[in-house]
Parts: sequence; C-alpha cells; structure tokens
Amino acid sequence: MMFKKKEKKEKKEKKSLFGEKSQVSPAVIKRLPRYHRYLGELLRNNRLRISSSELSEMMDVTASQIRQDLNCFGGFGQQGYGYNVRYLYDKISDLLGVNAGFGAIIIGAGNLGRALVCSHMFERRGVRRLALFDIDPSLVGTTVADIPILHIDELDEFVRTQNVHIAVLTTPKEAAAEAMNRVLELGIRGIWNFSNAELRSAHPQAVIENIHLGDSLMTLCYEVSRRSAEEQKK
Amino acid sequence: MMFKKKEKKEKKEKKSLFGEKSQVSPAVIKRLPRYHRYLGELLRNNRLRISSSELSEMMDVTASQIRQDLNCFGGFGQQGYGYNVRYLYDKISDLLGVNAGFGAIIIGAGNLGRALVCSHMFERRGVRRLALFDIDPSLVGTTVADIPILHIDELDEFVRTQNVHIAVLTTPKEAAAEAMNRVLELGIRGIWNFSNAELRSAHPQAVIENIHLGDSLMTLCYEVSRRSAEEQKK
Repeated sequence: MMFKKKEKKEKKEKKSLFGEKSQVSPAVIKRLPRYHRYLGELLRNNRLRISSSELSEMMDVTASQIRQDLNCFGGFGQQGYGYNVRYLYDKISDLLGVNAGFGAIIIGAGNLGRALVCSHMFERRGVRRLALFDIDPSLVGTTVADIPILHIDELDEFVRTQNVHIAVLTTPKEAAAEAMNRVLELGIRGIWNFSNAELRSAHPQAVIENIHLGDSLMTLCYEVSRRSAEEQKK
Repeated sequence: MMFKKKEKKEKKEKKSLFGEKSQVSPAVIKRLPRYHRYLGELLRNNRLRISSSELSEMMDVTASQIRQDLNCFGGFGQQGYGYNVRYLYDKISDLLGVNAGFGAIIIGAGNLGRALVCSHMFERRGVRRLALFDIDPSLVGTTVADIPILHIDELDEFVRTQNVHIAVLTTPKEAAAEAMNRVLELGIRGIWNFSNAELRSAHPQAVIENIHLGDSLMTLCYEVSRRSAEEQKK
C-alpha cells in the first residue's frame, strides 16, 4: 500500500516537471548543474537515497534552499524518507539536456582548445566532441584525444553533414565575432565562448555563454587584497 | 575657476573610495572586473571620457545600473560631462588588487595548466606567473611560455623564498584537496581551483575561487534544448 502511494506520487511529480519546464526560475536553473554534479557523485558511490539535510551539508547550502530548489519540479522529497538520487539525477539530466545527444565542435585548436577537448567534461554531460577547426597547417590533419583537427574551410560542409549543436570558440579575440556569425548562419545555436571578446548576437535562437576567466582571477585578487588589508589592520 | 571646482570634486571622491572600500557591496564587486575590462579597452582606444549612456550601450546594461554601481565609489560622473575613463580604470584597478604585485604559481602542468600559463590573462591583471609544478619527470625541468616547470617537491622551498599569493590548481580531482591544504599551510591565501573537486577550507584567510566549466556547459545545453523545444512547438 505504502509503495503504491509512493508510485502515484512520483507519477504526479513527473507530470508537473515537464508541464512546468519553462516555469523553473532562471536562478534555480543556474544552480541545477551543481545539483547534477553532486547527485552524479552520489550515484557513483552507490548512494540511492539522501536527505535534504545531508545534501545540505555536502553542498554547503541550507536544507531549506535545497527543498525550495527541488520543489520547483513538484518536489521529490518525502519527510523522513529523503530524495531518490537516481530519479532526481535523471530528471535534472533531462531538463539540462544531458541526454539530448548534442554534438560540439571546437573552433581554435590552440592550447585552450586542446585542453578543453582532452577533458572529460563533454562526455560526462552527454555532449559528443566531433572535431576541432583551425587554420594552422601544422595542426590540420592531426588529432587531439582522437578528435580530428580540420581546416576551417571544411567547416560548412562538416556542419551540413553532421549534427552540430554547440560551437566552442577558442579563437583570438579578433576572430571571435566572425566565427560566431559563421556558425550561427550554419544553424548552430549554442556558442560557448572562451575568446576574450564578449559576444552578443541579435539572432533570436542564439544561446551564448561567455566565459571570462580573467574576471574570476580579478575577483580572487580583490578578495586576497581585501583580506590582507584586514589582516594588517589587526 | 571651472577647473578648480572639478579638481576639488575628484579629491572628495578619492577619499570616499578608500574610506568605504569595504562597504562596496559584493554584487557590485562581482561586476567590477567587467567594468575594468571595458574601461581598459576604451583606454587602449584612447578614449578618455565616456557617458553612462554610451557605456550602457557598450556593456548592455542600463545606464541607471551603471550610475548606481559607480556611485558606490563616491560617483565619478558629472551630468553632461561623462566619466573620466583613466581615473575610473585606475580606481577600479586599485580596488581589485591589479597593482598589488601578486605572484601566482600553477600546480599541475597538464593541458589546462599549460593553456592558462600561455594566456595573457595574468600579466594583463598585474599578476606575475612564477612557476608551474608537476610530478611528471618528462615535464619537470622544461619551460612553458618561459615559465619553468618545477618538481612538486621543490614547492615548499620555492614558496618560502618567493612572494606567492595565488595558487592555480589544475591537478586531477583526487589531488586537489591535498594540494590546497599544502599551499595554505605555506601561507598562500588565494586558491584558483580548476580541478573538478569543489574545494572549501576552514582556514579563515583562505580565498577560494572554484571554476566549474562543466556547469557552464550544462547551462548552455539547457538553453539550447529549451529553445529548440520552443521552436518545435511553433
């Protein structure tokens, strides 16, 4: 009886998750990748249930924040029973597009492009790395982590014949806007921009994530200088 | 007469900037690196004055937001006159610790560590790259972008004799916490963490910036899948 009740509840939640997909607030969406990371870690350690208070301690956020965030999906938690880790992980994966079969290309096969392609970041999130593109003749025709480096002139043909959703830009700053416009014209919608240029596009379907590592370094420098100033005052 | 009045005003602002340094809200601090980036660009293009409305257009934030942010420092703007770009840039640089003479080491000389060291990110923000550290005998003793790769066993001696403020961690996930604890013990306060581990420390002076590129990739995937779902509905 107890089991049946639970099953019913999960069905209801499932419906509300997809029905209200677009109603999840942007602030919660921003936090979902982190939940996804922690839940994935729990799964790898064969943890199937977790309470909001334990998750709270692991993630260093309040249990009430966790309940609030996860209740956006209709709430998977049950008092004294905890969250079903696999269920929550799968739902968040779906919502984030982990199982959407996205493919990515990397434009710019310099140090950063190569470092990104070598990381496990893409595969772990269900994103296939398809190819790198560059103009350097000493790189074109070689591979990095089994991913081919193609000449940028092959880009149009490649995108027309392959299923590419995301372009990772690691070009020099000056070349970034042109690269973005070119891939948008080819129908790619996701731009992950590591060039130092801050990219924007009037294209209604374009999704652009600008990464500015330098901004993060500045924030760190600020905090270090603030704390040492405080320390000197003492 | 007009000139004298202006000079007086700038003096007043200068005082309030440093007097209220610690009162600048964290939200504004988070945005300062971006102002710093845009103001630096303006300076490189020899622009000495800019109005809040022009800066607003460049940065794609409202002019009122810009005035609100910059007024935290006592307000450099004058109606119809615009901001003094050099003055504002220098003040924000000081506040962010750009001229504090910070030195950084990079722990982990793999693809990402090498890519970071090759970028201009550090030098542009006044942070000196001092050395990379690794355990791989094929890397130790070589250089990347003229920066030496030293063996991790040389770390203690190096930190004791050099002025190191920031440790950039690009180690495997498993090694990150140990690396952090070791550099904190050696007196380094700024941790810029690129390992996949989310680091925290009970050390009261530790400043940790965790970079999770995978979270950004997930946010991008979410937006791409949401927009294509919307497109299919039409």
